[in-house]
Amino acid sequence: MPTISKKGNNIPPSPIRKLVPFADQAKKKGVDILHLNIGQPDIKSPTESIDAIKNIELDILKYEYSQGSYEFRNNLCKYYSNHNIHVLPDDIITTVGASEALSFTLNSICDPGDEVIIPEPFYANYNGFAQASDVKVIPITSKIEDNFSLPSIESFENKINNRTKAIIICNPCNPTGYVYSKDEIIAIADLAKKHDLFIVVDEVYREFIYTDIKHFSILEDQRFYENAILIDSTSKRYSLCGARIGFIVSKNSDFIETCLKFALTRLSPPTLALIAANEALNSDENYIKNVINEYSNRRKVLISELSNLNDIQYSNPMGAFYSIIKLPVNNAEEFAKFLLTDFSINNESVMVSPASGFYSSKNIGNDEIRIAFVLNSEKLKRAIKIINLGLKEFIS
Amino acid sequence: MPTISKKGNNIPPSPIRKLVPFADQAKKKGVDILHLNIGQPDIKSPTESIDAIKNIELDILKYEYSQGSYEFRNNLCKYYSNHNIHVLPDDIITTVGASEALSFTLNSICDPGDEVIIPEPFYANYNGFAQASDVKVIPITSKIEDNFSLPSIESFENKINNRTKAIIICNPCNPTGYVYSKDEIIAIADLAKKHDLFIVVDEVYREFIYTDIKHFSILEDQRFYENAILIDSTSKRYSLCGARIGFIVSKNSDFIETCLKFALTRLSPPTLALIAANEALNSDENYIKNVINEYSNRRKVLISELSNLNDIQYSNPMGAFYSIIKLPVNNAEEFAKFLLTDFSINNESVMVSPASGFYSSKNIGNDEIRIAFVLNSEKLKRAIKIINLGLKEFIS
Repeated sequence: MPTISKKGNNIPPSPIRKLVPFADQAKKKGVDILHLNIGQPDIKSPTESIDAIKNIELDILKYEYSQGSYEFRNNLCKYYSNHNIHVLPDDIITTVGASEALSFTLNSICDPGDEVIIPEPFYANYNGFAQASDVKVIPITSKIEDNFSLPSIESFENKINNRTKAIIICNPCNPTGYVYSKDEIIAIADLAKKHDLFIVVDEVYREFIYTDIKHFSILEDQRFYENAILIDSTSKRYSLCGARIGFIVSKNSDFIETCLKFALTRLSPPTLALIAANEALNSDENYIKNVINEYSNRRKVLISELSNLNDIQYSNPMGAFYSIIKLPVNNAEEFAKFLLTDFSINNESVMVSPASGFYSSKNIGNDEIRIAFVLNSEKLKRAIKIINLGLKEFIS
Repeated sequence: MPTISKKGNNIPPSPIRKLVPFADQAKKKGVDILHLNIGQPDIKSPTESIDAIKNIELDILKYEYSQGSYEFRNNLCKYYSNHNIHVLPDDIITTVGASEALSFTLNSICDPGDEVIIPEPFYANYNGFAQASDVKVIPITSKIEDNFSLPSIESFENKINNRTKAIIICNPCNPTGYVYSKDEIIAIADLAKKHDLFIVVDEVYREFIYTDIKHFSILEDQRFYENAILIDSTSKRYSLCGARIGFIVSKNSDFIETCLKFALTRLSPPTLALIAANEALNSDENYIKNVINEYSNRRKVLISELSNLNDIQYSNPMGAFYSIIKLPVNNAEEFAKFLLTDFSINNESVMVSPASGFYSSKNIGNDEIRIAFVLNSEKLKRAIKIINLGLKEFIS
């Protein structure tokens, strides 16, 4: 019998999707599921994107340039310049979602056994990408008591050794909702620069900011041009998750040239999706404003509802659309499963993500869940009520 | 200064696309380029696919299931049963092109330093996928004198050691056009089974057969169910290269479950592309017949034109749409570049792929090119004429 790879065996299951079979079973039984488990916005994609697809004039669905069309990358440069990020089309590689952007990045900077430092909890799939590239994730634990702000620079520096290649940050942060301040970003980038490391910043939630903090991008400061790698995507911003269009942006030309080699190997990003993403960049500027307003309202509703619950702690989402909630249970995964298999109100239940999968350290976050507030206010209210009553039944 | 990975530095440039900058320069000078370098068919995609895209009824471009929709995988099962391949939707993972299918496969069966045996010349990007996964490619050289048929089983067996995880075959073969016989496939699969290896067969050109040989799929023989991994794609069959829809098919459930983990990590294949690919499966059965007829005619033209050239040798393409041509030059890459930079007839020239990049062994194939006969007969005739006259000028 031929054997499976160690890395394949070791890749952790996605906490976001591992309970999908239980949700499917519930749906078969006629129970509606409110999905707070996955960052799939319910907001409409820009009409410009959908119309462009409906009006395509082509006979052959051809390969796209491996790095994405010049037009698209040029359009991205205009978008970035509105965010005080000044880059050129050649600084950009279009990828199949931010997922592929992270894979190319790890492969371009790490060999097997190399290490990357990431504050945890972090986007769970970073674990999978690291495993695929045989890269070791070194976690630095951030705490719910501190609203998951950046752990001390010293705690990062203590972990740096000659296998360390990068520090990875997600800002605004999935899964905590924390937005790193300019001071925090500069402090961690200074540390990366001091030790000749890359500083990789996943900014797919750049616009999703709900407090008066201003988002500071790693590429706003020219001092970090050699070290900085920006990971980005149209998925959340324009509700185009299924398009699978992401991008890598860096002023480090050696790095970009290496990413291009990996991009050439897999030939092309998806052509139709690129049309949709390109038109999203051209869409009405009120589109994003309305999206952020909507999420801002949902956040208020979420916080108001959560504040009524007893015995829980939660991170205050300053950005993105996630919050980590600490529950009065030993095993939040069992609770999440219970909601799908044994609990409903008016034939409706909730799917959440157990948070332990967002930690790399063992035995942390077992009592936490991540929720994505990607549903409208009415559904959010019902969802939190279901969690609240479900908790009471689960505990009793 | 942060450093690039060894694997990133070592990844070989794509022979198919590395000369693109020279082609772009030629185009800027007003020279039309006949592209024989890349397997981008000029055949129209099925109207059913394009119409389905134009008629989409959706407001949100949502994530697709990580393994692809049940409907699509079920449709694939029907397609396969028409080819004597009997599989279930759960035996299939939808991927972003055959490219991602190969990446998932290597990651699921190999750890860094593991080896895969591949007869060369082989599809050049196998090198890139292997490099990305730190897998060592062990080539077995097939010869133009034998029309690139399967080298002896003994030559494969001699290379098997405890790091060997798989034998990879492309059938029909890109870049040689060779179609392995049932006997050859069974012999190599028997060897894989004997040594507990996977036998990975890339069958993206399954229907592209021009002689009376019948294509024999690795999954037609149940004895190989534990060992067999089928790589496939809608790209060439339905002229949907830009869709980026491929798939992995295997009856080995451990393997498929492992691939699914990698698929979950990157979330989803592209949604719009899956709609196009699904409708292609439902398209008029004459579509493929007409496509194969057209390529069959092109092949005849190609062989007829090549037979007029002096001092060359070429592989007789029994399938796919490629041929390797051995030229009377020392450095076929220089010749390919010369065609783009210094030669044209009536403001037209040709882009071909230097074949050395399709070999893993050093210093083989330096005098060979690969051509893709993806243009109509008139263009093919002009292209071969340009190659012929270009050769005379290059040599003189």
